[in-house]
Amino acid sequence: MKVALIQQKYRHTKEETVEHTLAQIEKAVAQRADLIVLQELHQGPYFCQYEDPALFDLAEDFETDREFWQNVSKEYGIVIVASLFERRAPGLYHNSAFVFDKGRCAGFYRKMHIPDDPGFYEKFYFAPGDRGFEPIDTSIGRLGVLICWDQWFPEAARIMALKGAQILIYPTAIGWFDEDSQEEKERQLESWITIQRSHAIANALPVITVNRVGFEKDPSGGLNGIRFWGNSFVAGVQGEILCRGGLEEELLIAQIDPKRTENQRRIWPFLRDRRVDAYEDLLKRFCDD
Amino acid sequence: MKVALIQQKYRHTKEETVEHTLAQIEKAVAQRADLIVLQELHQGPYFCQYEDPALFDLAEDFETDREFWQNVSKEYGIVIVASLFERRAPGLYHNSAFVFDKGRCAGFYRKMHIPDDPGFYEKFYFAPGDRGFEPIDTSIGRLGVLICWDQWFPEAARIMALKGAQILIYPTAIGWFDEDSQEEKERQLESWITIQRSHAIANALPVITVNRVGFEKDPSGGLNGIRFWGNSFVAGVQGEILCRGGLEEELLIAQIDPKRTENQRRIWPFLRDRRVDAYEDLLKRFCDD
Repeated sequence: MKVALIQQKYRHTKEETVEHTLAQIEKAVAQRADLIVLQELHQGPYFCQYEDPALFDLAEDFETDREFWQNVSKEYGIVIVASLFERRAPGLYHNSAFVFDKGRCAGFYRKMHIPDDPGFYEKFYFAPGDRGFEPIDTSIGRLGVLICWDQWFPEAARIMALKGAQILIYPTAIGWFDEDSQEEKERQLESWITIQRSHAIANALPVITVNRVGFEKDPSGGLNGIRFWGNSFVAGVQGEILCRGGLEEELLIAQIDPKRTENQRRIWPFLRDRRVDAYEDLLKRFCDD
Repeated sequence: MKVALIQQKYRHTKEETVEHTLAQIEKAVAQRADLIVLQELHQGPYFCQYEDPALFDLAEDFETDREFWQNVSKEYGIVIVASLFERRAPGLYHNSAFVFDKGRCAGFYRKMHIPDDPGFYEKFYFAPGDRGFEPIDTSIGRLGVLICWDQWFPEAARIMALKGAQILIYPTAIGWFDEDSQEEKERQLESWITIQRSHAIANALPVITVNRVGFEKDPSGGLNGIRFWGNSFVAGVQGEILCRGGLEEELLIAQIDPKRTENQRRIWPFLRDRRVDAYEDLLKRFCDD
């Protein structure tokens, strides 16, 4: 299976940004990609750098956008993972990923773990997902789609695996503050890659992660802004890196072999040995009674 | 806090092996180590390469051995994590780690996840632990002691963290088969380090892992034997490597700062955002109803 990752920056307007995405999709299709994964909230800027009710307007065209990407998947006969700002009801919005399979909406996932820290004020914009961790069946396999902050939670990846996901997929928007030291930046990037590789390893599943690039100024002036670190990558079932991007715009193509899951799990059979009789404390916030 | 990791090979007899360990402990104490971690089943060979009821004799002196290491901790005024073959009753044995705190037995942990694959026939020798994932309080902090195969299960590390563990500790015995390709060996070693670094990252806890070195022939002739890959290491709360051994015998010393957990969790507050309302499926073997 050939997968394509489109790592890009926000290009001044939604139109210019989507135009660039479509050009990359065309290239990916020319290279016979079966699956195209786009980054988190790929149509616009990463708007969560400050809290402003006016920004909910960005979800205004949600239904049109959803149809648009569904049509793109039809036109090119491919599977696309698109990440959209979902308007569900007045005052109720989600950070959602949609899977379009050759013109069909195969399913969608609402981000379950919502971050909130300086520059990433997502709890203001997004209601936590209420559909759980459900993989999505497509013509190319069962996809475990998660989003960004979910990547720090082994629980999410594990549940997807227990539900038969064959690939884990993370559209993402993460970056550095220029003020941090070079050492701190390296630790952050490295920890981000490491935790996601660990989901591949723990579950013997390939992992696809697509992150944005470019500097986006904080329009509120509260902070300077975020330098999105790219480094989109694909890991194999042992966590080995199959391809990895840099800090610039890039179309990444990788070949993955979901059949390796079977072999890997035969010799390192973690699912056999999980102590499901002793995991109840995982359902607690903290064990201090 | 200064921690010492004693990575060694099995030296022909229990006596010679223990003698070497004691010499290393003396060196570690001279360097003012507060905590000494020994590798899995450090008194003897890794005997699980084949199944033989006669090998339960190796646990015969269990109670004497336990007292011995307790006395060592008293003599040197340090905390020691020792890994022993525990004889609990006729026909009931465990792979256990004991924490001795300056002469006191602070607590012990019975390996919960038991592997079983060619060359690692542990399900024959060890009953699965029945004491859950309970950190152990010592004069230098609350230690989340786990053992080897546990390292592949994010669930174990997470529960230790939820119970207030301040350091995760893994005595280990893992190695290569010479027959595997160089690429496969690299993937195995790298995945082993990656998954354990991920426990540091997911929980913002330092991780200490001590593995044995040396080639141990399979006495049954069923397989050639195991080349234990060493690479003992300490990771900081962001998963960064603070020290890492090679393939030979080594005394590793590292400085860790458990206070970093507080700072790290303030800015990347994963415990705050865990979806404990949506993790119930973690208690299932597989979600196929």
